[in-house]
Amino acid sequence: MSAQISPLAPKSYAKLTPVDGVTMATAEANIRYKNRTDVLFVLMDKGTEVAGVFTKSKCPSAPVDWCRTSLAQGKARALVVNSGNANAFTGKKGAEAVELTAKIAAKAVNCKPEEIFIASTGVIGEPLDATKFNGVLESCAKQASPDNWMEAAQAIMTTDTFPKLAGRKVLIGDQEVTINGFAKGAGMIQPDMATMLSFIFTDAPIAAPVLQALLKKGADNSFNCVTVDGDTSTSDTLMMFATGAAAKRGIRKIESTSDSRLKAFKAALDDLLAELAQYVAKDGEGARKFVTVSVSGATSNASAKKIAFAIANSPLVKTAAAGEDANWGRVVMAVGKAGEPAQRDLLTIAFGDIVVAQKGARAPDYSEEAASAYMKNAHITISVDLGLGKGKARVWTCDLTKAYVEINGDYRS
Amino acid sequence: MSAQISPLAPKSYAKLTPVDGVTMATAEANIRYKNRTDVLFVLMDKGTEVAGVFTKSKCPSAPVDWCRTSLAQGKARALVVNSGNANAFTGKKGAEAVELTAKIAAKAVNCKPEEIFIASTGVIGEPLDATKFNGVLESCAKQASPDNWMEAAQAIMTTDTFPKLAGRKVLIGDQEVTINGFAKGAGMIQPDMATMLSFIFTDAPIAAPVLQALLKKGADNSFNCVTVDGDTSTSDTLMMFATGAAAKRGIRKIESTSDSRLKAFKAALDDLLAELAQYVAKDGEGARKFVTVSVSGATSNASAKKIAFAIANSPLVKTAAAGEDANWGRVVMAVGKAGEPAQRDLLTIAFGDIVVAQKGARAPDYSEEAASAYMKNAHITISVDLGLGKGKARVWTCDLTKAYVEINGDYRS
Repeated sequence: MSAQISPLAPKSYAKLTPVDGVTMATAEANIRYKNRTDVLFVLMDKGTEVAGVFTKSKCPSAPVDWCRTSLAQGKARALVVNSGNANAFTGKKGAEAVELTAKIAAKAVNCKPEEIFIASTGVIGEPLDATKFNGVLESCAKQASPDNWMEAAQAIMTTDTFPKLAGRKVLIGDQEVTINGFAKGAGMIQPDMATMLSFIFTDAPIAAPVLQALLKKGADNSFNCVTVDGDTSTSDTLMMFATGAAAKRGIRKIESTSDSRLKAFKAALDDLLAELAQYVAKDGEGARKFVTVSVSGATSNASAKKIAFAIANSPLVKTAAAGEDANWGRVVMAVGKAGEPAQRDLLTIAFGDIVVAQKGARAPDYSEEAASAYMKNAHITISVDLGLGKGKARVWTCDLTKAYVEINGDYRS
Repeated sequence: MSAQISPLAPKSYAKLTPVDGVTMATAEANIRYKNRTDVLFVLMDKGTEVAGVFTKSKCPSAPVDWCRTSLAQGKARALVVNSGNANAFTGKKGAEAVELTAKIAAKAVNCKPEEIFIASTGVIGEPLDATKFNGVLESCAKQASPDNWMEAAQAIMTTDTFPKLAGRKVLIGDQEVTINGFAKGAGMIQPDMATMLSFIFTDAPIAAPVLQALLKKGADNSFNCVTVDGDTSTSDTLMMFATGAAAKRGIRKIESTSDSRLKAFKAALDDLLAELAQYVAKDGEGARKFVTVSVSGATSNASAKKIAFAIANSPLVKTAAAGEDANWGRVVMAVGKAGEPAQRDLLTIAFGDIVVAQKGARAPDYSEEAASAYMKNAHITISVDLGLGKGKARVWTCDLTKAYVEINGDYRS
């Protein structure tokens, strides 16, 4: 963990209220870090439905392999997350470590191993000694409380400088349900289906296939729109658990994505996912500025997203942001290299509300002074209109600072 | 220009001998820089054949548009290059500036404007005042000498810390011909057909279509294998000029790519292009290490190249190189994110001759000490074997240091 907290961290946190059917505890298992919690154990009521989206990496971690397989049966009783070791590229030993973890956890909560979901984050290539969970998970199960959300978000941090958690309350019919979630991020961030690690919990009674559809769509507009460095982790995991405990309060189970009661829930979930995803960009390694890249007028939404990522991943655009330099020429370059339909002489580029370029040249009333003043903000929006069609996209990123190089040149994470 | 010369710069330069039919001069036109040359004018004999490959950017510079059009007629009499202003994203004014430049140059050498080739490098989006070439090109034409190769390479530098030039002598039949070239690079470097700017000259009598074929193929294995930051310039230009002056010495003109006399010439040209392309990576902004990424065992050469670039462009791999950290987990990550066929459990990764990972896990005899010692070298090779097929590729890059962030956060180039 870095000593210096990101200047983009939230100034305060609202305390999350319990999610009916969910309890948790954290512990120090000394996996890699000393004198800090590095294990999270979340217990969930019988009947909890689960959904997940995972990294598209061709070299996924052992826990990702495990979760993908277990997801098929759609039920969950517990989640184990450790920080300090990603259990990725660990071969047969890695798979064995996951199996042992599931076995220890299943014994602690008295369920089947396939109802245990597992995620690991940290160093790649080091064997993970799962015997360290022996006793630890059992003791966590005994201490688990419905109020440990902040502790949970802290236990899964690696180079993160602040914990990332958020909650929403929303009505299903006339009954209120809760959605809470937390995430971790920092580096190796351009999720390709999900980010590093994020977990969402609700007491709403929603069947796994519906939950999966909601989560996949929600991820596309949140975590899949974030990049820190264009590097996709081996361990990206976004999971959602629905305990269904709110059924006690008379909410009929939601079995179809066309259920009209889902509308408000979906909006609240999307909003929550966006908040967590933005935290990931705001805690990008070395981040000092939060940058929103907004592309419109593309030939399709997919094309707009590729162009937005070309801008958001360009080291030259990101260093210009760090240097508070209104260098829109680099935005032109990034649009040009994206390989998507673009016509130089139709381009419009704005920093905030300041139009800097239009019709293939500098804007007639361009003011370097005004643009430079805007770049001093902590939150910057770069907008590009291609003038070709109706496709649009919005992605979030951060600036590229010397601290990013320092963190990743000095620290084996 | 940076004050600090790249530690990867060549220790000395062999003096280039003249290319029969080529003379040149440089001048200070005060386009942006003060107290240094910023214009190069190269004059070539009547009958000079020309070939070129250019950026695939959708937002090409005005000079790139001009060269593409003029290339159709296949003949060249002069080349004008300026540094300090890229004349890119300059709209109608940019096209007018190129036309005026060609007109001034054509008058100075008494040829048609379309026989003038033009390249510009520097800031994007600033109008280029081509009237600054008035008088300057005329006076260059009068002073032009066959010996100004070093001066030429220096005049086109921007953030480059050393001039990049090289030459070869090769036999066509029993007659020796010369191939000289120079290049500039530094930032915004992942050429997509050619690099920032590079120019090759020969006295060999080679017809334009043959020259074009040689150059395109040569570029694919040299400049198109280089990346500094994954950012593709609006101005990438690689051109080759063949004066044919060696025909006087009895060399019959080469009109076909299947001419057997081309074999040695092609090998020498490829070698020259590779040397210049390597200089570009060695002078990547902030570079302290030269990194060769070698991928084998892919399902195709194209697939291998995509994976090699995913590794070479990964900020995490590049910062690990800067930090002399044998962090092969990040190489696994980059292979995984490339989106190309890969099987985790067949991967072999080596740093230099040290195998660090095989069969999806850390190598059994892995020595952190040996790997770390290797990373202290200025030249590093990262090899990946995918174990799937016969596809292979090799790309060159440099490390990502704080100096890169500094140069690009502080300097509008």
